[in-house]
Amino acid sequence: MSQVIIDTLWVTLAAFLVFWMNLGFASVESGMARSKNTVNILSKNFIVFAVSSLGFMALGFGLMFGSDNPFIGTKNLWILGNIPEYYTNPDTLLLGSPITFWIKFFWQLVFCGTAATIVSGAVAERVKYMAFIIFSFALTLIIYPIIGHWIWGGGWLAKLGFQDFAGGAVVHSLGGWAALAGAIILGPRIGKYGKDGKPRAIPGHNMGLAVIGVFVLWLGWFGFNPGSTLSFANPEDVAHVLLTTNTAAIAGILLSTVTSWLKIGKPDLGMTINGCLAGLVIITPGAAYVSIPASLLLGAIGGVVVVFAVLVFDKAKVDDPVGATSVHLVCGILGTLAIGLFAKEGITTLSPASGFFYGGGLGLLGVQALGVFTVMGFGFTASALVWLALKKTMGIRVTAQEEIEGLDIGEHGNKAYPDFVIAANIPTDDYEVIAATEPKQVVPSAQAIPVVNTAGSGAKITKVSIITGYDRLSKLQESLDALGITGMTITSVMGYGMQKGHTKEYYRGTPVETKLLPKAKLDIVICKVPVPMLVDVVKKALYTGNFGDGKLFISDVENVIKVRTGEEGYEALQDEV
Amino acid sequence: MSQVIIDTLWVTLAAFLVFWMNLGFASVESGMARSKNTVNILSKNFIVFAVSSLGFMALGFGLMFGSDNPFIGTKNLWILGNIPEYYTNPDTLLLGSPITFWIKFFWQLVFCGTAATIVSGAVAERVKYMAFIIFSFALTLIIYPIIGHWIWGGGWLAKLGFQDFAGGAVVHSLGGWAALAGAIILGPRIGKYGKDGKPRAIPGHNMGLAVIGVFVLWLGWFGFNPGSTLSFANPEDVAHVLLTTNTAAIAGILLSTVTSWLKIGKPDLGMTINGCLAGLVIITPGAAYVSIPASLLLGAIGGVVVVFAVLVFDKAKVDDPVGATSVHLVCGILGTLAIGLFAKEGITTLSPASGFFYGGGLGLLGVQALGVFTVMGFGFTASALVWLALKKTMGIRVTAQEEIEGLDIGEHGNKAYPDFVIAANIPTDDYEVIAATEPKQVVPSAQAIPVVNTAGSGAKITKVSIITGYDRLSKLQESLDALGITGMTITSVMGYGMQKGHTKEYYRGTPVETKLLPKAKLDIVICKVPVPMLVDVVKKALYTGNFGDGKLFISDVENVIKVRTGEEGYEALQDEV
Amino acid sequence: MSQVIIDTLWVTLAAFLVFWMNLGFASVESGMARSKNTVNILSKNFIVFAVSSLGFMALGFGLMFGSDNPFIGTKNLWILGNIPEYYTNPDTLLLGSPITFWIKFFWQLVFCGTAATIVSGAVAERVKYMAFIIFSFALTLIIYPIIGHWIWGGGWLAKLGFQDFAGGAVVHSLGGWAALAGAIILGPRIGKYGKDGKPRAIPGHNMGLAVIGVFVLWLGWFGFNPGSTLSFANPEDVAHVLLTTNTAAIAGILLSTVTSWLKIGKPDLGMTINGCLAGLVIITPGAAYVSIPASLLLGAIGGVVVVFAVLVFDKAKVDDPVGATSVHLVCGILGTLAIGLFAKEGITTLSPASGFFYGGGLGLLGVQALGVFTVMGFGFTASALVWLALKKTMGIRVTAQEEIEGLDIGEHGNKAYPDFVIAANIPTDDYEVIAATEPKQVVPSAQAIPVVNTAGSGAKITKVSIITGYDRLSKLQESLDALGITGMTITSVMGYGMQKGHTKEYYRGTPVETKLLPKAKLDIVICKVPVPMLVDVVKKALYTGNFGDGKLFISDVENVIKVRTGEEGYEALQDEV
Repeated sequence: MSQVIIDTLWVTLAAFLVFWMNLGFASVESGMARSKNTVNILSKNFIVFAVSSLGFMALGFGLMFGSDNPFIGTKNLWILGNIPEYYTNPDTLLLGSPITFWIKFFWQLVFCGTAATIVSGAVAERVKYMAFIIFSFALTLIIYPIIGHWIWGGGWLAKLGFQDFAGGAVVHSLGGWAALAGAIILGPRIGKYGKDGKPRAIPGHNMGLAVIGVFVLWLGWFGFNPGSTLSFANPEDVAHVLLTTNTAAIAGILLSTVTSWLKIGKPDLGMTINGCLAGLVIITPGAAYVSIPASLLLGAIGGVVVVFAVLVFDKAKVDDPVGATSVHLVCGILGTLAIGLFAKEGITTLSPASGFFYGGGLGLLGVQALGVFTVMGFGFTASALVWLALKKTMGIRVTAQEEIEGLDIGEHGNKAYPDFVIAANIPTDDYEVIAATEPKQVVPSAQAIPVVNTAGSGAKITKVSIITGYDRLSKLQESLDALGITGMTITSVMGYGMQKGHTKEYYRGTPVETKLLPKAKLDIVICKVPVPMLVDVVKKALYTGNFGDGKLFISDVENVIKVRTGEEGYEALQDEV
Repeated sequence: MSQVIIDTLWVTLAAFLVFWMNLGFASVESGMARSKNTVNILSKNFIVFAVSSLGFMALGFGLMFGSDNPFIGTKNLWILGNIPEYYTNPDTLLLGSPITFWIKFFWQLVFCGTAATIVSGAVAERVKYMAFIIFSFALTLIIYPIIGHWIWGGGWLAKLGFQDFAGGAVVHSLGGWAALAGAIILGPRIGKYGKDGKPRAIPGHNMGLAVIGVFVLWLGWFGFNPGSTLSFANPEDVAHVLLTTNTAAIAGILLSTVTSWLKIGKPDLGMTINGCLAGLVIITPGAAYVSIPASLLLGAIGGVVVVFAVLVFDKAKVDDPVGATSVHLVCGILGTLAIGLFAKEGITTLSPASGFFYGGGLGLLGVQALGVFTVMGFGFTASALVWLALKKTMGIRVTAQEEIEGLDIGEHGNKAYPDFVIAANIPTDDYEVIAATEPKQVVPSAQAIPVVNTAGSGAKITKVSIITGYDRLSKLQESLDALGITGMTITSVMGYGMQKGHTKEYYRGTPVETKLLPKAKLDIVICKVPVPMLVDVVKKALYTGNFGDGKLFISDVENVIKVRTGEEGYEALQDEV
Repeated sequence: MSQVIIDTLWVTLAAFLVFWMNLGFASVESGMARSKNTVNILSKNFIVFAVSSLGFMALGFGLMFGSDNPFIGTKNLWILGNIPEYYTNPDTLLLGSPITFWIKFFWQLVFCGTAATIVSGAVAERVKYMAFIIFSFALTLIIYPIIGHWIWGGGWLAKLGFQDFAGGAVVHSLGGWAALAGAIILGPRIGKYGKDGKPRAIPGHNMGLAVIGVFVLWLGWFGFNPGSTLSFANPEDVAHVLLTTNTAAIAGILLSTVTSWLKIGKPDLGMTINGCLAGLVIITPGAAYVSIPASLLLGAIGGVVVVFAVLVFDKAKVDDPVGATSVHLVCGILGTLAIGLFAKEGITTLSPASGFFYGGGLGLLGVQALGVFTVMGFGFTASALVWLALKKTMGIRVTAQEEIEGLDIGEHGNKAYPDFVIAANIPTDDYEVIAATEPKQVVPSAQAIPVVNTAGSGAKITKVSIITGYDRLSKLQESLDALGITGMTITSVMGYGMQKGHTKEYYRGTPVETKLLPKAKLDIVICKVPVPMLVDVVKKALYTGNFGDGKLFISDVENVIKVRTGEEGYEALQDEV
């Protein structure tokens, strides 16, 4: 028996924890998106590990570690079947570690999967499922292994002395650049920006799911960073990495909470979540090289920066639904550079050099900066090229209608929460694609009962109930606002039989038999505004000429009483501004 | 210090992961069932581990490992108190492993719990809680230990050379047979099959919960299979099992997704989930015996087969809400047989023989087939006998009313999601139990205001609002369809005071004080159909003579406008087909 | 290589599992509270680990282990920077274990975090976020380390022979006393007790979340108790602790289920959850000292006791939304005392003495009782003083309006489930704060159309629709009950534009643009009760003089039909009692 068995056991268990992070990403991302895209996000995060495993197994590992030149591995690409002796010979010490080859392979595989899954959040709620799968395959088959070869596979950056202990550059920055390229090329979600160009909040639908995800990620990081020792021979090293990791996370939580409290006025849970992850990312590249007090400082910086980064990306019209770029890209870069300042030789047996603050001069910082620019140059460019190639060929974005209805139905034919009544309430007023034409003028049926109000006290009070799709709601409300309609009630209802032949939904291969479609019912009681004027405005707002435009029901109301003032009738309907 | 300490540590940690699978089953099963049965499914999966632990501790372990004859253990049955020397003597090498006895015991205990929990999903949404508890007790106390003795306890199948590395036969096939027996004897859920006999989709209520469950199970499987080495002395063996396990899982994901995409037209998330589990099950019996490329192939087969298996069981009227039989039974059998073909002597130190494809002849395949038939013969028969005995005595199925209302209220008096508005929308038209009698004829009160429509333009427009229970909705809609009512709106409302003395709901011992019952409100606006005719049809559809039959409210509507066509009044209500 | 490396690996992994319990507490507590407080509970449980880590790192560890006198550590308080040689010298054997210092530190840190998080559940749904953060800081910085020093840091209780293997007194009892002090000083939630003083059920909003949490806690406990060996040198010891832990848990599940079935009439899932945790807590202090059969008995006692404890605390007006005191305090005390009875010298190498039932006399029981009273005396008093100091200064309870609207909006400006329609349905009839004044008398507008019913058959039927806030619902229903209104329908609607300038909600720094506020719509159809009388009662019940009091809409109904009896018009509206 030898130490190598214990080392192998440790890395095996740490790899389980890194694998576990796939659930973390799936939960955080689906929790922070809308309910109508839940199945899609879960599917993406689920299949991305399968796709990246296959890509990495088929070619990626060989490109990354089949070492023979500083730019790319070309030997021993096909590892299934005959594993090349080069990989299993303990003397060549692949990855500087004598542990069992397949555990090293699995360790690298789960890291590769993490890089791919970072992208998922930034492109959420509008990317085509197939386009995302192909992009993930390209990322893990080619782009990630090349960067990985340069930094971890004995390539040119490694030879220059570039340091990245647990993947702040290889995994998080690269995943972040790929995410940024995707988010920019896809463009923002419908409704994310108002006509004034200002960003709007699109709240995540399930904060419980998001918090489960953060804890899963946090636990996973206890494998990600401490496991990157690839050995338990020096428990002090492992313990040091564990402590810097945890300390940066708690500092990120505390500072992001304080920052959002001061900046927004409330301790926003979404920001606290991002702060925790920011602390974990920023410490990742240097977790074995910096001191515990430095990790407290770095985590705090991450916690502050991430709050502003989220707001800056939002203003810059980079629509990243879960903040993946703010967390993984920005903090990955900061952490990589921080090694050049905070690294301290000898703080663990793994720390190779000292940074500027510990007398190491600016050399290490320079190399770290070179690495950061290299990952940007290659990672962003290569990712953007793949996204653009997909855009030109198969398209990368779902149709506007599919996006508004939700990708769950359009892409998967499944609903995530079929039993629950959903109150879709998204701003979509800049969505003018469907409602492109004027309603055709129809002479009203002569038999219709005319309803006329005479503005003023004692006038007839009328209720107009409008039943229409949720996607029309925003435009309708805008029109009603313009008309001065200041009070209304909206109810979530199920419309029956209005759109025949709806067979888009399946569950495990069987079509879901439903003639019930979710609709919004608006009840407006008016007295001052003449009914024909209201009807006209509503018709213009809703008309597209397609099924589902909606119906209006007009009926008589005897009286209205406003409790606060005691006013009745006409007066009760005149709201103060 | 010795290797045995490391081995014990490894098995301890692997056992934690197998225990963890209990959450996986609870999540997948409750996510893939309806919200009204969530508390029941969670309760079943929660208590089943307690019941199976008790059964296995009290008797099961002794029957399984108290070795003295090829059929059943009879020595040392009672392990609490004085642990027999036979079990703890390192020389007797129980289970071929020298690790601490109680860790071996705990390892077997968590495996036993897994077999019991497989059954839970297949009998979900209609089995009586107490019947399920008793069945689980019988399964883990008697049936599982006997099969286990034959295969793992030194019994006759083991002596013949039957191979089952990590429980594809002992756990998954047996659990699958018990599940199949239960599903058949219980019969399908109300509404699962239409009057035409065709299966209908009953979508799961929370796909986020289901995906959490799959990741938990996947992680758990990294304990289930690699931990079955019961040693870390050869890390290459553990690594090999880990890689075959993971590779089969990703192949299962990819192929089930592709298969459902081609067959259904969409990449169904439920199928992807089943595909992942299919890959994990199919590799379980031979994970240490087959090569990594073979695991890729086996996982792919599992992924394709499970999609068709789900559809076949559905058509065969075996109603298995979560696909437990397709996953655990079908893939457990395939994986057990596959050893006879793909096993390769020497691929790990644990692999005992070669299968047909590696020159081992057909002998091993024959023994594997014998084992498969044995598990079927004994497992299915014994399970069916227990289910039938329970059916004859206490009954195994809840009442139809309880099933329609949901087992959460009937069995537990709890709701899973009391704050959320639930849109129950299940097909129940073959449910004729309650509405058995004709409404008694009541002479209408003379004072009622008669409402008469004259079919045709200019006729009076009338709104009929119907308030009734969700369980009557399907029958009502069918009647309205027959009447040609093509448009209506359904709203989820809370009815107050309609059914006095509703005290079925408790929360931690205190009755939930609510006079509010969930009701459906249907608004129908008619002009052509005479009101008395509609009223008559509705009364017939809803009448049972019990409280809660519902009420109709009739009121006048001044006008109706259809936005798409601009039509008003009578014309606006005549929908095209 | 030496055994200490394996021991360090074991404790590292066990510490991960204890860290993992933070998710367990977050899930159980948020699942067992109402949806409107979900963000707040998740935030509390998330930040509490950060706060307690910081406090324990900054001072707590030094107070607990900087040993130099029996009362409090005063040496080596500041452990960041230069770690004192006292802590790292293997000869001083801090905590009796030679493993790496920082792993020992991290082990203690995650234990400290657990004590703090226990409090969270008991004060849920009404405590101010900032007050809870400050209390947690005080608890982990001062109170916990002092108790910890006495028992685990070589203090006076340790010297007297007090035993607490894994923290039944240090963690669970202390956390429980802090929770009890908080729950008492805060007072019960609005609506928890009726005017008759009887407790009311306030059901948890998501039982799936709660069950996820229990499984996470259970898994975490496999680190908490077995890891407290701080060594894997005797695997038999670890195995014994694992078995007693698991056995007590399953006994707790089974007996709490049976007890609630017998006492309440149904197997309540909330009670089963509490029973599992009760079993885990009760075994914690003596897990290494008692036999496996004794653990079965202790778990069973915990399972029975917790059911009655929940009911007793409820009746005693200690409002503990998740049962934290019943689980952690009551069972922590019982388990600590049980050592004095059931401890058996030699059952593991860690068991120091025998209790009364194994011939050890009453000495150990006496010391254990002294410890229990000490923890009560110091823990409860110190906690109560901190709570009271916070109450006097910054206040510890949110405003009544914030409590009714939910802490998520008031404290965080976030909603947990913005996409879902929520059916708030809480009893709030003793909430008289807002509705303090009489409505001002307004002369009805002359133009209002008078609606008069003449009681009796043939009278005009009128529908009164009331739109108001959910917080007024309970008072309104009470008034309507008094008037004899026995039938109504309540719909969840969204009111638009009624309360201008609603900007309380944010999502990651961007205000959530909504003019839609959740409102309740009550539809009442009356014939016998005169409309003016109903209007008057409603106005009195709803009037506060503030925006949001609501509106009434009165309209004509032509007929009403009751399906069960066939009655129409006036008769159909007269419900039997």
